[in-house]
Amino acid sequence: MSTSPARHRVVIIGGGFGGLLCAKHLKKVPCDVTLLDRRNFHLFQPLLYQVATGSLSPANIAAPLRSILKKERNVRTLLADVGGFDLAAKEVLTIDGLRVSFDTLVVAAGSTHHYFGKDAEWEPIAPGLKTIEDATEIRRKVLGAFERAEREAEPAVRKRLLTFVVVGGGPTGVEMAGSVAELARQTLRRDFRSINPADAHVILVENSERVLQTFHEKLSANAEKSLREIGVDPWLKCRVTEVKPDRVVIDRGGVIETVPTETVIWAAGVKASPLAAKLKEAFGGTLQTDRAGRVVIAADCTAGGRADVFVIGDMAHQLGADGKPLPGVAPVAIQQGEYVARVIDARLRGSTLPTAFKYHDKGSMATIGRSHAVAQTGWMRLTGWLAWLAWLFIHVITLARFENRVLVVFQWFWNYVTRNRTARLITNDPAADAAHGLPASSAK
Amino acid sequence: MSTSPARHRVVIIGGGFGGLLCAKHLKKVPCDVTLLDRRNFHLFQPLLYQVATGSLSPANIAAPLRSILKKERNVRTLLADVGGFDLAAKEVLTIDGLRVSFDTLVVAAGSTHHYFGKDAEWEPIAPGLKTIEDATEIRRKVLGAFERAEREAEPAVRKRLLTFVVVGGGPTGVEMAGSVAELARQTLRRDFRSINPADAHVILVENSERVLQTFHEKLSANAEKSLREIGVDPWLKCRVTEVKPDRVVIDRGGVIETVPTETVIWAAGVKASPLAAKLKEAFGGTLQTDRAGRVVIAADCTAGGRADVFVIGDMAHQLGADGKPLPGVAPVAIQQGEYVARVIDARLRGSTLPTAFKYHDKGSMATIGRSHAVAQTGWMRLTGWLAWLAWLFIHVITLARFENRVLVVFQWFWNYVTRNRTARLITNDPAADAAHGLPASSAK
Repeated sequence: MSTSPARHRVVIIGGGFGGLLCAKHLKKVPCDVTLLDRRNFHLFQPLLYQVATGSLSPANIAAPLRSILKKERNVRTLLADVGGFDLAAKEVLTIDGLRVSFDTLVVAAGSTHHYFGKDAEWEPIAPGLKTIEDATEIRRKVLGAFERAEREAEPAVRKRLLTFVVVGGGPTGVEMAGSVAELARQTLRRDFRSINPADAHVILVENSERVLQTFHEKLSANAEKSLREIGVDPWLKCRVTEVKPDRVVIDRGGVIETVPTETVIWAAGVKASPLAAKLKEAFGGTLQTDRAGRVVIAADCTAGGRADVFVIGDMAHQLGADGKPLPGVAPVAIQQGEYVARVIDARLRGSTLPTAFKYHDKGSMATIGRSHAVAQTGWMRLTGWLAWLAWLFIHVITLARFENRVLVVFQWFWNYVTRNRTARLITNDPAADAAHGLPASSAK
Repeated sequence: MSTSPARHRVVIIGGGFGGLLCAKHLKKVPCDVTLLDRRNFHLFQPLLYQVATGSLSPANIAAPLRSILKKERNVRTLLADVGGFDLAAKEVLTIDGLRVSFDTLVVAAGSTHHYFGKDAEWEPIAPGLKTIEDATEIRRKVLGAFERAEREAEPAVRKRLLTFVVVGGGPTGVEMAGSVAELARQTLRRDFRSINPADAHVILVENSERVLQTFHEKLSANAEKSLREIGVDPWLKCRVTEVKPDRVVIDRGGVIETVPTETVIWAAGVKASPLAAKLKEAFGGTLQTDRAGRVVIAADCTAGGRADVFVIGDMAHQLGADGKPLPGVAPVAIQQGEYVARVIDARLRGSTLPTAFKYHDKGSMATIGRSHAVAQTGWMRLTGWLAWLAWLFIHVITLARFENRVLVVFQWFWNYVTRNRTARLITNDPAADAAHGLPASSAK
């Protein structure tokens, strides 16, 4: 790697879809790239719910950043937790005192859970699904509930242990609820002696009048029907008003209902990474952010009126062609990452700058249980087994690295045939519980 | 499952090799079996070092106990941490207040690390290799050291970070050291920009004058040569006298040497599970134990002169045909578990009791890096690639469940071809470090 001072220095924060694709596309651009991430791997978040329910191992959906970027010889990866910015000095500051200089900065630090202002109170009880640790923690809670139910003599306690509440009816919530229901009804069917896992009650709480709100109404209806068939109980137009270790309180259109449960999974809301606030601070407050803390970016993905600062992915707020903010999904981050690499390339070579960023929506899909999905792309809508095959195909070809793909497909196929799940491990010492429940650690 | 009071109740503590095989072999015996374990999975410990060095995922070498025992309809599995015994009442007490009655008790709770009396001081710094959490903690430490070295400008600190000390030259230590050396020299070869991972110094500290002391001398010599070839530095006739977070002090035959390092892996000594002491307590101290805390058992694997209490596996001390104590390896535990099931069967059916337990030693083997092993069985000795193939074959066919086997072979084969490792994830939040470092959690 050349370190001559003449080389333009690009610093990218975050090895998610946006940051990683930006780094990859800068491979042949005459610059030195430093990718900072606090984890040493890229995580394929869309499949995280399968780790949470024991179908896949963490390593199946995570690939070391250094491996992925092995051939990008102008990209250097550093394991570092960014704590702030010095925009005047053009430096990124890590929490352990490192200062990393940049000529161009790309911030792609993603999002974290949002508990409607109750973060400190609810997050330790109701884990969300953003990190590997979130997923293994949910796996531990869900499997642990069945284990404790098996030992429990008191019917009321047993019922509470076998009640699972998933909050949020978007794709993550739908996939999570479907997966828990199938775990209970199929995988664990013959595993216990005192309880019948099929007695599990899986409630999916959704604020609006339908699940998968961003999909076509017909697909929402189809998804709702499929969820009921596999044993999920969708509670629509419902709102969680309280989360406690042994219950949730739900407002069902004015009627307040207390549901005894020890397992609440949060898929209801996200907000920008805390780094967005740090960036705003560095801008002296002149940076505009939306209600979820996301940075409002210009048409060329720059932020705060500075040409050398880009913000992309889940952390960014940008309007689409329909006038609505772009959704926080992988394809948006990927396309923005590639776009920013093109802008940097054009600037360094002095060629024509690309026109404003335009998101090409290739469609969306959600899977419901073992062999059902809903998908839409443009005017086309797909449901059932065919949609599931499409979902499988698309996720597999998108997975970052060949080896992971083969293993994942093999494991899926195996689970499909046997209705078994092989990664049903309850790990993490109980002694580590406290640490894992801390808001600070889940937010990582 | 019949719960008629006439059925004989067998309680087995521990779902390791001994307990699991005993439960399986009781399938057709007219009794009700309760298997207690504090984990919900059986762990294939001999491959744990491959998790610790990123070649395999935890789920590849662990299978849910309920899955394995699905078809044994007279076996009930309970997730429970045993805290003591009431032998007069014939009850096992769990730490959370459950009392489980038995007619026959089989204790197979295994072993834990032994730090020559320095447990409290050394264990938090130098993790051993007994649990999934141990393995992911070692993985985190080893990979984290390379990451920090990449960021480090100071040559002395960098050297310290790239020094790895494995204590104990038995099979586990040899396998661990070889695996770390190959990780550095092959897998990570092109991953870093500032450091050369091949600069890593892997020291294997062994008390006696040769590695693999329980093997034939020629195999020890062969193993030592192979270790040197793949980059391990065996320090023989050496003794660790101090372990600190930034160094170990080693007595090299009278010469005291301080080795700066932040990664020490413990493979030097084991002692019986703390349950052995609890059992002794329950016996009012009349139970005989050896120096490592193992329970001295009779020829029929019973303990303390009680026909209804069996102790097997790593927790038990029994002499072999050669007059030496049987080693703490899986085959001994497996054969003892099967034997105890036969004794219980004979007693319940009133048939002839089997003669004294006799261990059939099928040989031992250890692998050294990517394609080398040493093996001995009877008068036969094998080294090199052929021994490695034998090692691979035997481990694969022994793995508890079909699915794991296929996945493991696939992953090995892939690693072999690409010299890559796919499970190189640094997980566990730094916030959880403290909890993971506690002696109490590592001892689990």
